[in-house]
Amino acid sequence: MSPREDAVLSTMQDVPLLISRILVHGSTIHGTSQVTTWTGEGEPQRRSFAEIGARSAQLAHALRDDLGVAGDDRVATLMWNNAEHVEAYFAIPSMGAVLHTLNLRLPVEQLAWIVNHAADRVVIVNGSLLPLLAPLLPHLPTVEHVVVSGPGDRSVLDGATAQVHEYEELLAGKPTAFDWPELDERQAAAMCYTSGTTGDPKGVVFSHRSVYLHSMQVNMAQSMGLTDQDTTLVVVPQFHVNAWGLPHATFMTGVNMLMPDRFLQPAPLAEMIESERPTHAAAVPTIWQGLLGELHAKPRDVSSLGQVTIGGSACPPSLMEAFDKLGMRVCHAWGMTETSPLGTIARPPAHAVGTEEELAYRLTQGRFPTSVEARLRGPGGERLPWDGESAGELEVRGPWIAGAYYGGASGEPFRPDDKFSEDGWLKTGDVGTISPDGFLTLTDRAKDVIKSGGEWISSVELENALMSHPDVAEAAVVAVPDDKWGERPLATVVLKEGATADFETLRSFLADEAQIAKWQLPERWTIIGAVPKTSVGKFDKKVLRRQYADGELDVTQI
Amino acid sequence: MSPREDAVLSTMQDVPLLISRILVHGSTIHGTSQVTTWTGEGEPQRRSFAEIGARSAQLAHALRDDLGVAGDDRVATLMWNNAEHVEAYFAIPSMGAVLHTLNLRLPVEQLAWIVNHAADRVVIVNGSLLPLLAPLLPHLPTVEHVVVSGPGDRSVLDGATAQVHEYEELLAGKPTAFDWPELDERQAAAMCYTSGTTGDPKGVVFSHRSVYLHSMQVNMAQSMGLTDQDTTLVVVPQFHVNAWGLPHATFMTGVNMLMPDRFLQPAPLAEMIESERPTHAAAVPTIWQGLLGELHAKPRDVSSLGQVTIGGSACPPSLMEAFDKLGMRVCHAWGMTETSPLGTIARPPAHAVGTEEELAYRLTQGRFPTSVEARLRGPGGERLPWDGESAGELEVRGPWIAGAYYGGASGEPFRPDDKFSEDGWLKTGDVGTISPDGFLTLTDRAKDVIKSGGEWISSVELENALMSHPDVAEAAVVAVPDDKWGERPLATVVLKEGATADFETLRSFLADEAQIAKWQLPERWTIIGAVPKTSVGKFDKKVLRRQYADGELDVTQI
Repeated sequence: MSPREDAVLSTMQDVPLLISRILVHGSTIHGTSQVTTWTGEGEPQRRSFAEIGARSAQLAHALRDDLGVAGDDRVATLMWNNAEHVEAYFAIPSMGAVLHTLNLRLPVEQLAWIVNHAADRVVIVNGSLLPLLAPLLPHLPTVEHVVVSGPGDRSVLDGATAQVHEYEELLAGKPTAFDWPELDERQAAAMCYTSGTTGDPKGVVFSHRSVYLHSMQVNMAQSMGLTDQDTTLVVVPQFHVNAWGLPHATFMTGVNMLMPDRFLQPAPLAEMIESERPTHAAAVPTIWQGLLGELHAKPRDVSSLGQVTIGGSACPPSLMEAFDKLGMRVCHAWGMTETSPLGTIARPPAHAVGTEEELAYRLTQGRFPTSVEARLRGPGGERLPWDGESAGELEVRGPWIAGAYYGGASGEPFRPDDKFSEDGWLKTGDVGTISPDGFLTLTDRAKDVIKSGGEWISSVELENALMSHPDVAEAAVVAVPDDKWGERPLATVVLKEGATADFETLRSFLADEAQIAKWQLPERWTIIGAVPKTSVGKFDKKVLRRQYADGELDVTQI
Repeated sequence: MSPREDAVLSTMQDVPLLISRILVHGSTIHGTSQVTTWTGEGEPQRRSFAEIGARSAQLAHALRDDLGVAGDDRVATLMWNNAEHVEAYFAIPSMGAVLHTLNLRLPVEQLAWIVNHAADRVVIVNGSLLPLLAPLLPHLPTVEHVVVSGPGDRSVLDGATAQVHEYEELLAGKPTAFDWPELDERQAAAMCYTSGTTGDPKGVVFSHRSVYLHSMQVNMAQSMGLTDQDTTLVVVPQFHVNAWGLPHATFMTGVNMLMPDRFLQPAPLAEMIESERPTHAAAVPTIWQGLLGELHAKPRDVSSLGQVTIGGSACPPSLMEAFDKLGMRVCHAWGMTETSPLGTIARPPAHAVGTEEELAYRLTQGRFPTSVEARLRGPGGERLPWDGESAGELEVRGPWIAGAYYGGASGEPFRPDDKFSEDGWLKTGDVGTISPDGFLTLTDRAKDVIKSGGEWISSVELENALMSHPDVAEAAVVAVPDDKWGERPLATVVLKEGATADFETLRSFLADEAQIAKWQLPERWTIIGAVPKTSVGKFDKKVLRRQYADGELDVTQI
């Protein structure tokens, strides 16, 4: 149908969704809200949103006038969570440049690769991280300026070819207002590289539009739902997918932020919770596990903390229950760099609240918001139903979901087939089920799932079942080639000391006790001394697959 | 700065913000949430969001295949708040057509003018409203189809030239899924005419984008902040600026809706609150005033209703306090058709909660959300500070704020100078102050304010001060021409029976008791029998101004 000449036009104003709007709103209407940064000793640093607004303007002036930042120049940050990092979050995209948050936990070679790929012109760095940056600098030819903020020995930068600046000196005397440009909302605002275990890191570039919409979602009552009555303890690093969107979301509603800077150990975290009384916190499970141990060793008043958002990886049920007992309500969320990251959040549905079902819902990855469309695809690419049983690879679509990766200064964005579907949806690489009411339960990574005769077998399910046998210390299940079925599972088992269970016993256990379907039971078994692990402690299944291919494993077929 | 060749492009997917997405989300992930429509007797009608989704698809098929609706055809609704109206809300814009909600309270001449101006092709009408529509039909040449839903005598349509259809017959047997088109998010979705007291009604056309963003805002914890644990009683009519966005917002988060249909009298409202136990309600003050009287006459259990949103006009403090005593927390909001309507919402700031300041904050019009930029302009167009004292005309800007009016089938959108500023902001016609923390307090309508020597005098403030004198029954203050000052206030006073106060006494009272600044005190005074009123009971000041101009008033100068 071709449009008619008398087409009805919307009479709405065409106002772009820009990060500068979030900054101006937060620093005026919520000007008295605060960013509190932990300093390790003495009083924390306290800065109002109004001050953050003024200093963001000063930073933008300094970057433009003193350092010559223009157009879409990349300005990187190598920083902890603190007020200055928040200033960089707002100043850099608001002036039209691109914020590039560097993950200080990456191997140095990857870090250098990423800075060079993004062609960062400026790096803002915390003084305490100079020992990490200084030896890299000679390998970062595009970096013209280093801006140092906070305590730390500057002498390690002696002899650097890049110009070195003091953050506070750059800001001093600059105007406290900036005429933020009216940008296109689809313009690049910030970038973040994924740290995939295979291949080069891949850059995800967020737009003003995606950040703005994501921030609104975070603030919806059904998501994190914070208001200016709240203080959020932002443990999740600002270099980890924009700290899950919290710095932007808080400026939309005046939520106070408590920033731990480099004090991420259980003891200072417990101390800052007791003294600053945040009402909400966000972090990965490891942090919470550590905090829980600390609280058991040295009880503290953490009663302010009513709500805790956990993401990054699944929260063990034991941890959720332990937190519940402390009066902290854990809320599970799932996402990835490519999803900005809010993909799902596990608020139980109304009918389950207060019932036995509630915990089961809270242990899922959660429900998709309106702006995240989801579908499951089976081994042959076919669409699978939302029946809570059919497991498929999760694909998502939406205005804050990546549709490509950054191609570098000289390249077009690229869309590898294993990451994006033919119609542009993101392939998450996660395998799971979706219930009829839209709750996602992840069961495996797509690369680890066993594709057997057009059906999928979850390696994780088999591993968990095996590890529930009293004789088994560890077990990893990997796909190995099979002439008839394409792939079949290989069970690699680490027995406990003195344990005697044989393969037939374990196989019967899987079938009878763990109720694994017969066609999913492994035929190939091997005993190993330990499951190989990656640097972050995950099972390294590609080592096992290679050992099998090279005939290094002593495999029994039963 | 011209863009460089190596510009960093956002890698985000370009997914439009469409009403069909809200529908699909609500009817799947929140498929068990319900729209309950009051029927006056017996069980209410209950329809799940999944059913609404299926029936919206059926309606779209019927409109397209049976009625030939295509492109941007306008489909009007003359309906109460009910499930079928919700279906129309989603089906019409989702298929690409334009929903036109008709205000059934308008004078019939205005209603006819509006239908003709919008060139509506179809009208969906509740059977109970046929007595209103039938006599108008001969004057509505563009209306080809009338679709009747719900009880009501159809015979009044006998002889109509438009084709008459039964809503349920049209839907019967149609497919329950529709391949909703991927539209441009800036496309027209819905329209609503303002019922201004002067001149022709003006059409505001909402886009998919504006509706989507507005819905996200409504759901933010700092706004209405509802979740699927809630049921909202939608008293504000669906023909009144999209029922303040509630039907769209609820489908984003699974909030249950309780719809009163035509049962808007205090008794049935009290009954449905008691039996259906909504947690939230939205309506204009008049409705609440009536409900309060009903509850005093016949107490009911209304304890479910924790939160009540009041808009449309200011809520009297007495009403707010009366509701507080009943455990219903009143939240003030301000907006207009041109603002979609959410302009401000009065959530008190964190520091005021639980203090004496809290009520004062709640009695303001409220705080602007991130997406609504606001500024005040004085009599000469100059920008005024947010100091809580400087009163100016409020101008707003944002993605759900009108920047023009609909020009009709043959005309371009138009931007009258008295409604839009030179740089495209909406002139709200409201005069007020903004506090440093962004709370709006309205003091007058711009057309009633007295422009005296480059300063503004609030007519409302003078009236309230006069009416607080024990001898004064009513008082209206209007601007009259003055050679020296441009305009000066004329005080028109209705004395109580037997009252004897003279003008000098009243003037001294204003100066001494009411603390009105000396330069604002009226010199011109007159006694009248009653203040002329508009059809909705507001002071009709243009009558007074005309009577003064025509020399019909006996004015004393003191």
